[in-house]
Amino acid sequence: MVQQVSDSAAAERIRRAAIEAFAESGYGGTSTREITKRLGMSATAMYPHYRSKEELLFAISLQGHRAALQVLQEADEPDADHLRRLRAVVAAFTGWQAEQRHVARVVQYELHALTPEHYRTIVAIRRQTTAVIAGIVEGGKKSGDFEIDDPDDVVLAISSLCVDVCRWFPSTRHRDPERLAKTYADLAERMVVGAR
Amino acid sequence: MVQQVSDSAAAERIRRAAIEAFAESGYGGTSTREITKRLGMSATAMYPHYRSKEELLFAISLQGHRAALQVLQEADEPDADHLRRLRAVVAAFTGWQAEQRHVARVVQYELHALTPEHYRTIVAIRRQTTAVIAGIVEGGKKSGDFEIDDPDDVVLAISSLCVDVCRWFPSTRHRDPERLAKTYADLAERMVVGAR
Repeated sequence: MVQQVSDSAAAERIRRAAIEAFAESGYGGTSTREITKRLGMSATAMYPHYRSKEELLFAISLQGHRAALQVLQEADEPDADHLRRLRAVVAAFTGWQAEQRHVARVVQYELHALTPEHYRTIVAIRRQTTAVIAGIVEGGKKSGDFEIDDPDDVVLAISSLCVDVCRWFPSTRHRDPERLAKTYADLAERMVVGAR
Repeated sequence: MVQQVSDSAAAERIRRAAIEAFAESGYGGTSTREITKRLGMSATAMYPHYRSKEELLFAISLQGHRAALQVLQEADEPDADHLRRLRAVVAAFTGWQAEQRHVARVVQYELHALTPEHYRTIVAIRRQTTAVIAGIVEGGKKSGDFEIDDPDDVVLAISSLCVDVCRWFPSTRHRDPERLAKTYADLAERMVVGAR
């Protein structure tokens, strides 16, 4: 069964308010009352949309993980060479983490607060995201385009590098998601083909 | 003025309990009462040691940041060549993030909860940590050992890669801090000298 994230305007406003509240005080430090208060709603007005704070977190996580996956899938050009594909995917993922850093932080740091069932649903999407990068890296090794020993470690490092952007972005030095995306594509390139 | 972290046994027990509580529920989701309850203490028994939850967070952050800095400084061998120095420092930093992941998460993710004055103190230590890596990377570029365009971006990527370990470690694949440290030293090497 494919889970749907409600597209009603009210549900979306609640998710947005929750993302901002979680970004400020953490999931554990935010009550549903604090979220609805931001919208001038009563706490009970949330229940038709989300029956608990965890359901709200799940909806945000589902939407966030799907958005990131879609960004990667759309950036990939399966007919291009492996290096071009890797650069495109890394740039897109980096840009998304920078631009959507509040959503990304919730999505990355609050996973442990999900119920086991919800957690499994999210992990399945994370696997698909990793698989996009892994498919390119493994393909590049097989074709000889990439000079790497262990594709899994390279995939881990590239994913980790992109994901960590949401923790620190922006910095004094990096305020432009597009410039950072280019920088990270260059770094990923070095990891797979080395200096030229 | 150099700030001291109390080395009394009681203060240390409180910090340990707080680290575990923050790791489970986040800083925002943990009350001082919940921390002292873990130790069978009354909430007021904490005040002679830490007057507030923020003071406790600051003590943990100070100790954690100093420990990470010390690990880097001790791993560095200023007389060795740049590549050997970089490998040693990256391995040590990676290992620390893996082994001390609970402390590391508090230290990395809850910075925004510090008072501005405490934040400035911590940022000064973070700059020293970055400076250890930056000194090696810049030295390697100057000597021609490292074939890199922009040392700052390489320092950012290497630091970010190491720090993000505390988010995901352990994984199905990586459960051994020492093996991961070796893997990350290899990846950092590729970033500065490319494939060989």
